[in-house]
Amino acid sequence: MLAYEVVNKELVRTERPRPEPKSGEVLVEVAGVGVNRGDVLQVAGHYPPPPGVTDIPGLECSGTILDAGDTNMEVGQKVSCLLAGGAYAEYVAVPAGQVAPIPEPLTTIEGGSIIEVAATVWSNLGMVAGLREGHRVLIHGGAGGIGSFAIQLCAALGAEVAVTAGSQEKLDYCASLGATTLINYKEEDFAERLKGSCDIILDIMGAKYLAGNIRSLADDGQLVIIGLQGGTRAEINLGALLPKRLSIHGRTLRARSLEDKAEIVRSTVENVWPLLAEGKIVHHSRTLPFEEAARAHELLTSGENTGKLVLEV
Amino acid sequence: MLAYEVVNKELVRTERPRPEPKSGEVLVEVAGVGVNRGDVLQVAGHYPPPPGVTDIPGLECSGTILDAGDTNMEVGQKVSCLLAGGAYAEYVAVPAGQVAPIPEPLTTIEGGSIIEVAATVWSNLGMVAGLREGHRVLIHGGAGGIGSFAIQLCAALGAEVAVTAGSQEKLDYCASLGATTLINYKEEDFAERLKGSCDIILDIMGAKYLAGNIRSLADDGQLVIIGLQGGTRAEINLGALLPKRLSIHGRTLRARSLEDKAEIVRSTVENVWPLLAEGKIVHHSRTLPFEEAARAHELLTSGENTGKLVLEV
Repeated sequence: MLAYEVVNKELVRTERPRPEPKSGEVLVEVAGVGVNRGDVLQVAGHYPPPPGVTDIPGLECSGTILDAGDTNMEVGQKVSCLLAGGAYAEYVAVPAGQVAPIPEPLTTIEGGSIIEVAATVWSNLGMVAGLREGHRVLIHGGAGGIGSFAIQLCAALGAEVAVTAGSQEKLDYCASLGATTLINYKEEDFAERLKGSCDIILDIMGAKYLAGNIRSLADDGQLVIIGLQGGTRAEINLGALLPKRLSIHGRTLRARSLEDKAEIVRSTVENVWPLLAEGKIVHHSRTLPFEEAARAHELLTSGENTGKLVLEV
Repeated sequence: MLAYEVVNKELVRTERPRPEPKSGEVLVEVAGVGVNRGDVLQVAGHYPPPPGVTDIPGLECSGTILDAGDTNMEVGQKVSCLLAGGAYAEYVAVPAGQVAPIPEPLTTIEGGSIIEVAATVWSNLGMVAGLREGHRVLIHGGAGGIGSFAIQLCAALGAEVAVTAGSQEKLDYCASLGATTLINYKEEDFAERLKGSCDIILDIMGAKYLAGNIRSLADDGQLVIIGLQGGTRAEINLGALLPKRLSIHGRTLRARSLEDKAEIVRSTVENVWPLLAEGKIVHHSRTLPFEEAARAHELLTSGENTGKLVLEV
């Protein structure tokens, strides 16, 4: 089958044998491949696949079940799949717990770029931080793929959303999704504006924003760090954590156990798919041909793209 | 009434008016006053009472209900009380949600030194970290009041307990309570011994142990910091948090809302009182006369004392 591999920090087309589904797995003929920052990091050598996982990149796809193996899924079903790797290919083998129906109203191809962002946002805001109506939530990088989905989820559940972004155009986009406090991080110190007011922060910056995030949290506040774009090492003042009873969570989805991923996918389908069907969350994705995988990575890295990118296989 | 106040960083006997219970409060005639590190810190000027709380120190007591006010509690009931302050006195007014029965088999006086430690340990290990059978737990300062209670709670629930302490004598004491991994921090680097093996760490050292604690945690591990005896400012490597999906919680009990405290007391009585009654947790306390409050503080500070101290009023 056709696939991409990483050679000298570049995506290169290659031929690989079609994967054999193991017990508990289904074989999926791929239709759409979601492009994620994790893929770009993997190509750059910074995010190696977990032990036992294929070196072919790609954390999610959509497609059709070709072989249901020993699972109770049905051949021919259109599905959206959460993967530890291997999506940049014509076929993937997927544990049944990581297979979800394509949510309404998405096309099969669009379904290739929904489950990674939906599971990431839901597992961190909903399952880790306990997001609920009335919470005040800060989303950093609100105009990106994760950020734009997170804003809509928070607004749909009745939370108040503050965002940071680097231009007025991006802030306008965030406002159109439901954010009500808009902060241009190039012009303003977000922590000075938000000090002591946030119940939950979804962070992708790590070290650079740590002190500001802690300052922005209210009593019982929770900081969920899912990216380290602003570095890893920081000074922390633990004296600020105890009296406000703060929690800091570091999370990634990829290396979790099969059981955890199955529970996350199940909970995401239960809680997020209805919001997509009702139009309370709109999934913005742009489709490129499979041949333009490298260009999709460039677009993602440029920071100019809003919404998700999906490759049509 | 007789009470203690803080003058020039010393405990001084004084006369104060008997407190009037407000709506939702009961008036308790004090029998036993638990002595806690928080009291010592308050005398030293490092742990001021939260806004609206009396300047009289003391976070817990036992006694008899003299006036049930508008609550549904009963006059004459012997009780153990969690307080935001005011225990070093002959009478206290206590929100009904912070009043618990004296657990079997404790005497009324011993009941004055049980609820702060039980609520602190249960709220952090049970309610925050989700302690359960099979968990591997590290308790720093295992021979202290909090540590010795935490070891027994963990052992009673079927968790495996590692402890740090500063002498073989203290480690032997921890072993007698159920700890199975014994580390003398003066002779050994606990993180080198435990690396990647702990599901939960209950920490009182803060900055000094932060890097070692993070290193000791297993995947999905949780660090609960309830004391800062080793300082507040540390460098943190967030790059170690994300792949292992770690959480760091800073917690203190004193400034929590009335609703939170009532829920903690309710859950503590439900989950911990039966373990005391069954003898699975033994409460070690030493009684001193009320007049020796200052000496009790010296004993606590010396680090030579094991178990809790209670003042008989």
